[in-house]
Amino acid sequence: MMHLAWLLLASAAPQATPAPATQPAVTRPRPTPLPVTVDGRVAQLRDRALKDEVAWSIVEGLTTEIGPRPPGGSAAQARAREWSVARLKALGFRNVRIEPYELRNVWERGEEHGEVVGAHAQPLRLTALGNSGATPATGLTGEIAYFASLNDLLLAPDAAVRGKIAFVSNAMQPTQDGSSYGSSGAARFVGPNVAAKKGAAAVVIRSIGTDHGRGPHAGGTNFDPGVRPIPAAALSVADAENLERMVKLGGPVRLRLVLTPRFVGNRMSGNVVAEVPGTDRDAGVVLIGGHLDSWELGTGAIDDASGLGITTAAAKLIMDDHRPRRTIRVVWFGDEETGGWGGQAYARAHASERHATASESDFGADRVWRFETNFAAPAKAIGDRLATALAPLGIVRGTGTAGDGTDIAPVVRTGVAGVDLNQSGLRYFDWHHTPEDTLDRVDPVQLRQNVAAWTAMLAVVADAAEEIGPVPLRGGGE
Amino acid sequence: MMHLAWLLLASAAPQATPAPATQPAVTRPRPTPLPVTVDGRVAQLRDRALKDEVAWSIVEGLTTEIGPRPPGGSAAQARAREWSVARLKALGFRNVRIEPYELRNVWERGEEHGEVVGAHAQPLRLTALGNSGATPATGLTGEIAYFASLNDLLLAPDAAVRGKIAFVSNAMQPTQDGSSYGSSGAARFVGPNVAAKKGAAAVVIRSIGTDHGRGPHAGGTNFDPGVRPIPAAALSVADAENLERMVKLGGPVRLRLVLTPRFVGNRMSGNVVAEVPGTDRDAGVVLIGGHLDSWELGTGAIDDASGLGITTAAAKLIMDDHRPRRTIRVVWFGDEETGGWGGQAYARAHASERHATASESDFGADRVWRFETNFAAPAKAIGDRLATALAPLGIVRGTGTAGDGTDIAPVVRTGVAGVDLNQSGLRYFDWHHTPEDTLDRVDPVQLRQNVAAWTAMLAVVADAAEEIGPVPLRGGGE
Repeated sequence: MMHLAWLLLASAAPQATPAPATQPAVTRPRPTPLPVTVDGRVAQLRDRALKDEVAWSIVEGLTTEIGPRPPGGSAAQARAREWSVARLKALGFRNVRIEPYELRNVWERGEEHGEVVGAHAQPLRLTALGNSGATPATGLTGEIAYFASLNDLLLAPDAAVRGKIAFVSNAMQPTQDGSSYGSSGAARFVGPNVAAKKGAAAVVIRSIGTDHGRGPHAGGTNFDPGVRPIPAAALSVADAENLERMVKLGGPVRLRLVLTPRFVGNRMSGNVVAEVPGTDRDAGVVLIGGHLDSWELGTGAIDDASGLGITTAAAKLIMDDHRPRRTIRVVWFGDEETGGWGGQAYARAHASERHATASESDFGADRVWRFETNFAAPAKAIGDRLATALAPLGIVRGTGTAGDGTDIAPVVRTGVAGVDLNQSGLRYFDWHHTPEDTLDRVDPVQLRQNVAAWTAMLAVVADAAEEIGPVPLRGGGE
Repeated sequence: MMHLAWLLLASAAPQATPAPATQPAVTRPRPTPLPVTVDGRVAQLRDRALKDEVAWSIVEGLTTEIGPRPPGGSAAQARAREWSVARLKALGFRNVRIEPYELRNVWERGEEHGEVVGAHAQPLRLTALGNSGATPATGLTGEIAYFASLNDLLLAPDAAVRGKIAFVSNAMQPTQDGSSYGSSGAARFVGPNVAAKKGAAAVVIRSIGTDHGRGPHAGGTNFDPGVRPIPAAALSVADAENLERMVKLGGPVRLRLVLTPRFVGNRMSGNVVAEVPGTDRDAGVVLIGGHLDSWELGTGAIDDASGLGITTAAAKLIMDDHRPRRTIRVVWFGDEETGGWGGQAYARAHASERHATASESDFGADRVWRFETNFAAPAKAIGDRLATALAPLGIVRGTGTAGDGTDIAPVVRTGVAGVDLNQSGLRYFDWHHTPEDTLDRVDPVQLRQNVAAWTAMLAVVADAAEEIGPVPLRGGGE
């Protein structure tokens, strides 16, 4: 799933919270809400979606018939595109196609293992971070410099890091809105770059995850231009905790790392696009989707075959019911995990087209608990209708910004309105980017609730009579 | 943990179950139990154990400072023995020593990976079963012959298996008494032998486990004399389910396996022994313990550092309080996982000694829920005192056989009485023999309940004034 956007999310304005029950009740009268009329067809479609089988069949198909779909122009991702075109055509979508693009200087995973050497010798479970440098093929051995947090690494003098294997530990706690990924994730996003600049020989981090298992959490990192990438790996949470205990015993702890990723040059990849054509060509496209690629360790069920299944099933429910006003375009983006390359390619290819809204499902398969919009004034009533249509699914209306998602970010940055259906992140980081991201982590009941939410959203937004125009850019109009 | 004994356990006599609440109440009067007097010191010691820190420190130390302790005379197991001697001496035990023995024709794990090839190409997570044969170093490729259960494999004509990779799937359900390990485990214990006899090129089984993770469950298997061992591996449960879905899509499914274990000849290994000397040399030894070795994938926290910690902490609580009547001997057995070699060596070395009772803790770290004894008539009252002393810990009295445990089995087979403290197996097979068998799976509160149960048991049994004599052999007096 996305990572850069979370840094923004983590700094979003705090939201009002209800007063705890133990405080004296507030007796100030509340305004009675105005009634909102929602087309009865919306409710009917939404409830039909609660029996959906399409989303599950897509997740099952991709994870079983293809398995992992590594970013970087992999053969498996190419096979997945062919599978996707066939499946989307079979479902009845129009204009199904692959939109190819070129990836530059692709990073490819190699061998990866590690071990403690010396007094407490034992193997460690780890995985290379995307864009990691390589050790010699025979491995790299060095002493650990331990930092309880990224901040401790930032504060350390270069001399404490130089020539060592920096070990940055920081324990992530689950949050429903996923905001802890922003704060804890910083150790992965920028930790290796910081360590490299201080002269570290290599860096290992505690996985950015909320489980205690032995599956390390993959994910990308980045080095500043001019900084030579050092070997960088995530330890499984259990292994990081064990290593922390060894450090606390006192005395030097030494590791041997073998990481042999490499940059393999340019490669072709692509997005898969499918449409439900609308009746009004001028009303703008409703863009939805998720991403087709997945890290190698799991089979990419929650990240992000589920997002593909959810959005596609919802579009099909609309398509099978009526022709919507706006064209619904479902995009299965490529190569999200290493930098949102599919999303950028899509935005370039469709720069001249009018988009009404953009929405992405890329946060697992657990229930939608909140929605957010950022419609401009003439379209604000659509948000009220959405609130009414989504409430029976237990979905609250948020007050934050909308338009979240790595793949839609380049379109959102052009001023297109976002409609976000936020999934619960309470279990997501137990399995995200790990070997455990497999079909059995998907709860079919919660998956269907997602399809119902997206169906209701599409039914309201794609048919809305209001003009959906450009919105002010978030984040200061970057 | 033990495996052969479970086949016996699975066939033990069924126990009386209470009538469901919806049936008419049975109004037959129940006899009022006779009062049982237990020494007040027993309760005091038991409750002191609920604050124990020794058991945890042993589990933490072995899993952190040593890590995995592979059976088969490994260097890590040797390092663990040295660590154990130092720790047991530091705790104040007497006669702390290593008792060496020789292992014959040791099996050693090699490389192990697998993948689906062809249309659904993707990697599989697996581990070689102990005593598995080897593939060529370049791997073995073959078509799957799928069997939903061991029984289906048994029923299959040889022609359906010959030259293929037999895939035996069977889903295990958790049971509190662990009896499902006997029934489901048969696929591992004898499945490879059956497949080899039918001419299979190799065999993969669904892991004998109750989780859905990607960590395959290791464990031993055995081939009949004269049957050439074929490559045999356990797939993670998630991978087995995925493979099953591929089979159900129809069409041949082909695997490539690389398994390079080998037999490395004879090696030295050993048991670690420590004692709390008793006052009455003729009253017989109270033998307790667990096993020091562990499969390579995890760090052997629940299997079986916990058993060592629990039994040792209990013995120390007695030792620090008073000198018991009977000598308490704590044995940290070696090489249990590949056939109970340490237990056999112990029984040979101590054949001339009188043992009063034998008890083993080798079923994780979750709470003791039941105890069982098989005292001969003159000692039956000890069982009543145990019931009274253990009841406050929520422990029920069972009616099955006692003397369970691979390591104590050779001693029990000589007619020594067993006292079993049965732990709950409801979570055990989620992690048993997997990479997930790490310190964080140990619940400190349940671990202490174990120490309290063992302390109460030792306080009652080691000091019992009754003669504890030989008992009839179970299983028909083998």
